[in-house]
Amino acid sequence: MNQPALSGKRILVTQADVFMGPDLCTVLAEHGADVIADTQAMHSPHAPAAALAQAGDIDALVINLAVPAPTSLATEASDAEWNDTFAALVHPLHRLVRAALPAMIARRSGKILLMGSASALRGMKRASTYSAARGAQLSYIQSVGVEVAPHQVQVNAIAQNFVENPTYFPPEVQANPKFQQRLAREVPLGRLVGAREDAAFAAYLCSDAAHCFVGQVFPVCGGWVAR
Amino acid sequence: MNQPALSGKRILVTQADVFMGPDLCTVLAEHGADVIADTQAMHSPHAPAAALAQAGDIDALVINLAVPAPTSLATEASDAEWNDTFAALVHPLHRLVRAALPAMIARRSGKILLMGSASALRGMKRASTYSAARGAQLSYIQSVGVEVAPHQVQVNAIAQNFVENPTYFPPEVQANPKFQQRLAREVPLGRLVGAREDAAFAAYLCSDAAHCFVGQVFPVCGGWVAR
Amino acid sequence: MNQPALSGKRILVTQADVFMGPDLCTVLAEHGADVIADTQAMHSPHAPAAALAQAGDIDALVINLAVPAPTSLATEASDAEWNDTFAALVHPLHRLVRAALPAMIARRSGKILLMGSASALRGMKRASTYSAARGAQLSYIQSVGVEVAPHQVQVNAIAQNFVENPTYFPPEVQANPKFQQRLAREVPLGRLVGAREDAAFAAYLCSDAAHCFVGQVFPVCGGWVAR
Amino acid sequence: MNQPALSGKRILVTQADVFMGPDLCTVLAEHGADVIADTQAMHSPHAPAAALAQAGDIDALVINLAVPAPTSLATEASDAEWNDTFAALVHPLHRLVRAALPAMIARRSGKILLMGSASALRGMKRASTYSAARGAQLSYIQSVGVEVAPHQVQVNAIAQNFVENPTYFPPEVQANPKFQQRLAREVPLGRLVGAREDAAFAAYLCSDAAHCFVGQVFPVCGGWVAR
Repeated sequence: MNQPALSGKRILVTQADVFMGPDLCTVLAEHGADVIADTQAMHSPHAPAAALAQAGDIDALVINLAVPAPTSLATEASDAEWNDTFAALVHPLHRLVRAALPAMIARRSGKILLMGSASALRGMKRASTYSAARGAQLSYIQSVGVEVAPHQVQVNAIAQNFVENPTYFPPEVQANPKFQQRLAREVPLGRLVGAREDAAFAAYLCSDAAHCFVGQVFPVCGGWVAR
Repeated sequence: MNQPALSGKRILVTQADVFMGPDLCTVLAEHGADVIADTQAMHSPHAPAAALAQAGDIDALVINLAVPAPTSLATEASDAEWNDTFAALVHPLHRLVRAALPAMIARRSGKILLMGSASALRGMKRASTYSAARGAQLSYIQSVGVEVAPHQVQVNAIAQNFVENPTYFPPEVQANPKFQQRLAREVPLGRLVGAREDAAFAAYLCSDAAHCFVGQVFPVCGGWVAR
Repeated sequence: MNQPALSGKRILVTQADVFMGPDLCTVLAEHGADVIADTQAMHSPHAPAAALAQAGDIDALVINLAVPAPTSLATEASDAEWNDTFAALVHPLHRLVRAALPAMIARRSGKILLMGSASALRGMKRASTYSAARGAQLSYIQSVGVEVAPHQVQVNAIAQNFVENPTYFPPEVQANPKFQQRLAREVPLGRLVGAREDAAFAAYLCSDAAHCFVGQVFPVCGGWVAR
Repeated sequence: MNQPALSGKRILVTQADVFMGPDLCTVLAEHGADVIADTQAMHSPHAPAAALAQAGDIDALVINLAVPAPTSLATEASDAEWNDTFAALVHPLHRLVRAALPAMIARRSGKILLMGSASALRGMKRASTYSAARGAQLSYIQSVGVEVAPHQVQVNAIAQNFVENPTYFPPEVQANPKFQQRLAREVPLGRLVGAREDAAFAAYLCSDAAHCFVGQVFPVCGGWVAR
């Protein structure tokens, strides 16, 4: 127990400057990881493979993809909104996983963790485009997880909501009394999950302690969904 | 109880010649519905709105979208495969719902039922692209269902697997002894769900008896998933 | 489609005078069933087998068990409260199923439907005793359903909440403004599910149309839980 | 990160000599905890409160309850089997939680972790009695978790299956070729989860890092269930 849990692990974090990126990098490093903080946008079809190539050998890939969540009604959601959301959240996921897996499979070791969303697990108003994209992510992870488990590679997801982060809960949202009421009413925890709490769980899921998890979706949302 | 449950209901079924389409049309009509069987491909961005416009006033929209399921590994899945699958299953869903909702909301009545897939609920090997697309569908339905419930419009989904249909379980697959063993091993029902059983449940969910369901996902898969 | 769906079916409803009992009996009969409305209390170890014996041959058993839900905190729940709740909801379930199955298995046909509760699927304050008992019910049904499916016997459950019934939502509760606010806030449907809507779904699950469902839990709760 | 995660924590483990008990005690201690290993049987109504009283102040309670799982069919399960299983797994749970909570609520800090079972989440043949008891456990935890979250007390559960332990998977079972085939077929991980892997996750859920989890059920079963 004297070694930090991620000592000697090279971990690539995507879009390291947005969403959970900064806290992930800090907390993973505190657990001993050698963090490669990639800040490229991931929209371009070639960015995912390039990010992996630049990172070199890695032990874990933390897929952190974010986009300001559209809040249009389903009747108003434009094709552009739809396409942009999938271009930001969904298409890069498959390209990142496709680029990362071969080396992991070859050496029979590796972990991929998606920072996904619980909005895929429970319906919300004005969130249909976003929920759809986040739903694609979780179901993808479940199937890839089962597929690569025999190669000793673990692919899992956190499904978060009501976690402190600058993309979805910037200070002005947190300060809004209406938001505070919503939090008290809808989130059994009674507060936002701290960014560092979420990142610490991500660190656990990147460590050797998590060899046993296969294509699993872990809600981190203060009890907003239970399973 | 003397009237058939769908008597007087105009129901639009998309891609009525593939997947569950033929059985849906037959069974919905047997329950008294006036079925509009649309056989257009839904890839084109304009097809969904056109199908709705051609159908005129409808009481229910049954979204039946299918594509031969890719069986590549996650490491092999090409961008073309990915894009084609989403173009067939995901993007038309949002366009169909967007086109159908305004009239339903205006008259405070209407039902949308997606013929979705349980492959979004449980991981499977060589199914990552398909699972991702089907996952987008279910999470989208959950959020739209919650959003439009106050307008007395019901949006729900069947999440099927191991249901008899020519797209995924053609006779040659059903006849394959390996498939029969898989069925015996993985599906507690011990047989494929009949196409007419699935369509009868769809008919129930299109009827006035189903006013109480909101953004709900109903597995129809012979016990392959339980919830 | 000319025959009512339950024509010729003998269906035993337990505790037919409480909870969903009266509406179940009415609606099942409207669908053509020959309803045996048993009004015995089910606490006694011998009551379940006696009820089955008195009913004679049946096609379906609808297990309707209710008890006023305790509202104590977990710190206050007495052993007496705990034991009484399990005596009312849990122990009779296993005795009823055990008594009903042999004849169904012998003739390779039969259905058992539990009127269960969604309180087992999502945490609620001041509901721990009740949730525990309702959770035992649902998990039991899942396993028995899988076990007896090869015998052509179907065992399933409705997991209801926010369904109109005199046991849990008597008129004075429904008239309470605080309850109405809670309904608006927590239940996407925006109203209680009607007792007849719930009973109609139960009728569907007792009909031959439902041969394909195995150990499945169907939420009926106005969107309070989605899966 | 220099301090072990459970340094200074007093943790009571029940039935410390069976099921996950020995590995829990070892691993929790390796993480720095001061472990109170209680080996009393928990059937007696007074044992739970006595165990808590003897333990004195604790930071966490790990509820480890086990009984050889009955394998009778639902048609054969005797009242004695049913009552014994609930007496071993269910009734002590509520008594342990009731005894542990007041002190935790008073000092606004504490964790309760149930070592539950995934057999409550997915149906299995010849497991109805056991599934029912395990289902009561999980639903109870969900509701208590929500209830006590405002007091800064966290109550959660692991839902395990296919985890190495002497109670359910003794060496002779593991050595059985039929069991090995079942493992290969049904468990995506392709092996039993190690007892130490499971215990390490329990240690995480007892640490301050897990303040954010509320009434949550975490499957640990090698992918046998995904959510």
